[in-house]
Amino acid sequence: MADQVKAPPTFQWDLRVYWEDTDAGGIVFYANYLKFFERSRTEWLRSLGIQQQNLKDSSGCMFVVTDTTLRYHRPARLDDELVVTARMVEMGRASMTLKQQALLKSEHLQDQPATLLCEGTIRIAWVHGTSLQPRRIPVSILDRLKN
Amino acid sequence: MADQVKAPPTFQWDLRVYWEDTDAGGIVFYANYLKFFERSRTEWLRSLGIQQQNLKDSSGCMFVVTDTTLRYHRPARLDDELVVTARMVEMGRASMTLKQQALLKSEHLQDQPATLLCEGTIRIAWVHGTSLQPRRIPVSILDRLKN
Amino acid sequence: MADQVKAPPTFQWDLRVYWEDTDAGGIVFYANYLKFFERSRTEWLRSLGIQQQNLKDSSGCMFVVTDTTLRYHRPARLDDELVVTARMVEMGRASMTLKQQALLKSEHLQDQPATLLCEGTIRIAWVHGTSLQPRRIPVSILDRLKN
Amino acid sequence: MADQVKAPPTFQWDLRVYWEDTDAGGIVFYANYLKFFERSRTEWLRSLGIQQQNLKDSSGCMFVVTDTTLRYHRPARLDDELVVTARMVEMGRASMTLKQQALLKSEHLQDQPATLLCEGTIRIAWVHGTSLQPRRIPVSILDRLKN
Repeated sequence: MADQVKAPPTFQWDLRVYWEDTDAGGIVFYANYLKFFERSRTEWLRSLGIQQQNLKDSSGCMFVVTDTTLRYHRPARLDDELVVTARMVEMGRASMTLKQQALLKSEHLQDQPATLLCEGTIRIAWVHGTSLQPRRIPVSILDRLKN
Repeated sequence: MADQVKAPPTFQWDLRVYWEDTDAGGIVFYANYLKFFERSRTEWLRSLGIQQQNLKDSSGCMFVVTDTTLRYHRPARLDDELVVTARMVEMGRASMTLKQQALLKSEHLQDQPATLLCEGTIRIAWVHGTSLQPRRIPVSILDRLKN
Repeated sequence: MADQVKAPPTFQWDLRVYWEDTDAGGIVFYANYLKFFERSRTEWLRSLGIQQQNLKDSSGCMFVVTDTTLRYHRPARLDDELVVTARMVEMGRASMTLKQQALLKSEHLQDQPATLLCEGTIRIAWVHGTSLQPRRIPVSILDRLKN
Repeated sequence: MADQVKAPPTFQWDLRVYWEDTDAGGIVFYANYLKFFERSRTEWLRSLGIQQQNLKDSSGCMFVVTDTTLRYHRPARLDDELVVTARMVEMGRASMTLKQQALLKSEHLQDQPATLLCEGTIRIAWVHGTSLQPRRIPVSILDRLKN
């Protein structure tokens, strides 16, 4: 997919793997990467001055996830420190699409590239909080997203 | 604690341990017993004709958990089948307390007593859905709970 | 994608939405459909005589999820009863791909078609339990999967 | 319970509430405070130089939770920032007990005391990683815990 936004900055968010994130395979439970990706998206929005609870209280609307595609490359384990990226690749009137990655931070080899664990594409839409019907993203938010 | 309800019937709900329930210790993640206990409480309420979503829609109120005490005896593992019990031991005007157990079902030794994995005491209160302020449990619900 | 398995039977597994499955949007948290899909896959395997814990103990190998693609159509809410399907669409030497759906069971209109909530494609691979390196699926399991 | 350790320092760990942590009541799902408490305990151990995955790899043993008692005072909501404390109150040969609190950080009133959301007592035991049988905590770890 060709990026439709020029020179999109890539947001980064660090997090740590805890017991709660793992499963009996000894690795991070695959569904939890969706949580990791969302933490990064939430902090990316916060970095742009967009707080979702405030937004829901004031506008009655919220972002919901409509499509997710994830590919798992390597497992993460307890105590691993991850960097989770978020980069907008498409911006519509009522939705947007982000590319995200979870990478393993290497403590010992800081000049080495981080190892890719999981990558995905997430589409989120702006909907009414009760009816969940699609709505146009308010201009004030669009402006911040396009900054 | 002395039971304050005479001859309380014990509700039972069966469930299976999936990957999502386990952690890297190879066993069920201890926080998930709170989920298992709640599934059993929910199905106990349903068996009495009490559906929580309907109740919230019609009354604007809901049950929330205010106190939990859990003791872990033995671990459960992937694919284990559990019986989760729920038994009311105290009934107030605005709250109630239940004793609950998670037991391992033995497929091979059906005449053997089930193994106790985890037991706990859960207190739930009836509160307003938005303010979360305590409310008196409606008589119609009290009657069903005391049946 | 063209199905590469003739007349594949569709497995069905019923489950109920509990508080643990929902989020502050009042609906099922989207990541949890991956859990629902896995419960159905696990029970599908069990229906074929394949128990994952036993398999891991005896073979040292396990299935891991390598790719997931999900599309969310409509939300599920607390107390909803879902039917979650699993249907194999591709069978390789070291992996397989399933199509899965979560449908809302309608209690009142049993002659109505169920409402599609979420659908996805899940690829799982057979790997060594410790190294997580790909392995050929044992013939005894292949035979059961192709039955 | 009287503290049996003199002047125990209280460890603090900050975290943010995400969608994954909430339920349809619009608040943090009560079971998730066990996760929050564990993140704080894990980081407390890490601050003492104790990394659980390394420890399991080298000693074959791990900490498991054996008893939890939680009281819920006030709810947390999406986007709230919490401080989660951990303070050891009892140290045995094979187990230890911690008191923990989750407090709401107030951004606007930094001279105000934080609001208590949830508090609990958690007992953890040192066990063999496979048999889960109790073991004496190694002296090297005891020394760090008592420092």
